[in-house]
Amino acid sequence: MRKVRRHSEVPEATIHRLPRYLEKLKLLQAMGVEDVSSRQLAESLDIKASQLRHDFHYFGGFSRPGRPYQVGKLVPALEKIIGVSEPQPVAIIGAGHLGQALANYANMGVQGFPVRGVFDANPRLVGLEIRGQPVRDMDQLEPVIAQEGIRIAILTVPAPFAQEVTDRLVKAGIVGIVNFAPTDLKVPKTVAVRNERLAVGIMALSFKVKCILEGDCGTE
Amino acid sequence: MRKVRRHSEVPEATIHRLPRYLEKLKLLQAMGVEDVSSRQLAESLDIKASQLRHDFHYFGGFSRPGRPYQVGKLVPALEKIIGVSEPQPVAIIGAGHLGQALANYANMGVQGFPVRGVFDANPRLVGLEIRGQPVRDMDQLEPVIAQEGIRIAILTVPAPFAQEVTDRLVKAGIVGIVNFAPTDLKVPKTVAVRNERLAVGIMALSFKVKCILEGDCGTE
Repeated sequence: MRKVRRHSEVPEATIHRLPRYLEKLKLLQAMGVEDVSSRQLAESLDIKASQLRHDFHYFGGFSRPGRPYQVGKLVPALEKIIGVSEPQPVAIIGAGHLGQALANYANMGVQGFPVRGVFDANPRLVGLEIRGQPVRDMDQLEPVIAQEGIRIAILTVPAPFAQEVTDRLVKAGIVGIVNFAPTDLKVPKTVAVRNERLAVGIMALSFKVKCILEGDCGTE
Repeated sequence: MRKVRRHSEVPEATIHRLPRYLEKLKLLQAMGVEDVSSRQLAESLDIKASQLRHDFHYFGGFSRPGRPYQVGKLVPALEKIIGVSEPQPVAIIGAGHLGQALANYANMGVQGFPVRGVFDANPRLVGLEIRGQPVRDMDQLEPVIAQEGIRIAILTVPAPFAQEVTDRLVKAGIVGIVNFAPTDLKVPKTVAVRNERLAVGIMALSFKVKCILEGDCGTE
């Protein structure tokens, strides 16, 4: 194994592909697959094998040349790199449709992110049960985060409230925010934010739809 | 302007950045900003200016060397490339929490994707009004797609139903599917699929949270 690089040396695009590799490998593992070549794994994710090997090289490569990856070893290795070997409890702020969809999403727990708190400012939503958990009032935010040791929050509040809630989260010790509010957040450098934009995905798709409709997709 | 490349020559990663450029530029436009340098635009999106210029070169570059981009010209140019100059009507299949969140998301229409049909197989959801639109029964799927000229569908049904619904969508003339169901879809080569995985975003964030907690983020 080559030396594992520091986090800061790993390109953003590689970081975003790691969870896709892990998700696919867990699916293969569930199907009983033991070995997978870089070509097979890459093709199933619609990327080039050279790209996949390049990504893996940042973490030591995981394989001897010419040998397939062992799924049973690669899954825990990637889990450790991504930081999901241990469950990471998360809080969901905003229990509207999107917040409820996320809280209801069974895979959150399976994929290492058990939901340990759901919060909303709307009294009509407070007390509602989602998967056995009550929606709590916003005044419970800080105590629950402290009590459950939550470091990651998922933000699904309306844009005008997003910064105010973010400031409270940062003060309460949150170091990672998945932001579904359609606005940019100001956070200290010691807090990571990932902006999720529901419309960005459909726009990237639209580009391909356009080429299909115009017959300009080439021979690929 | 250099020759605009064929769609098939544009790398996947560039395609995924185009909507992020457009979203940011529209925000700048709304704020009254007229000119923006590649450095400013890139920094606001946390990418390198050289990366941004490289992406734009696939479409002619948009600017003379040393001159800033004109926001008012760049927005329609990107809209045309992405295929959102004209509104693209979309259908949402599955009116659970996620489907309702998407149907309720006002920005869908603003960003060029007006929702023209929401469908569900659950009789308790059929007839529910979301933003003035009824949830329709699945037997209305094909006639509404034909009548509204819908070419893009957003799939939020449970995984076990995803392939069956996909087959119907493809037969009905859909050429692009945003897939929120946690399963892979089989489609002909003439149909584009974009898999959205709610947990992938939080995993990419987790990688950064880990480096923050371990103090291994480097000096960046």
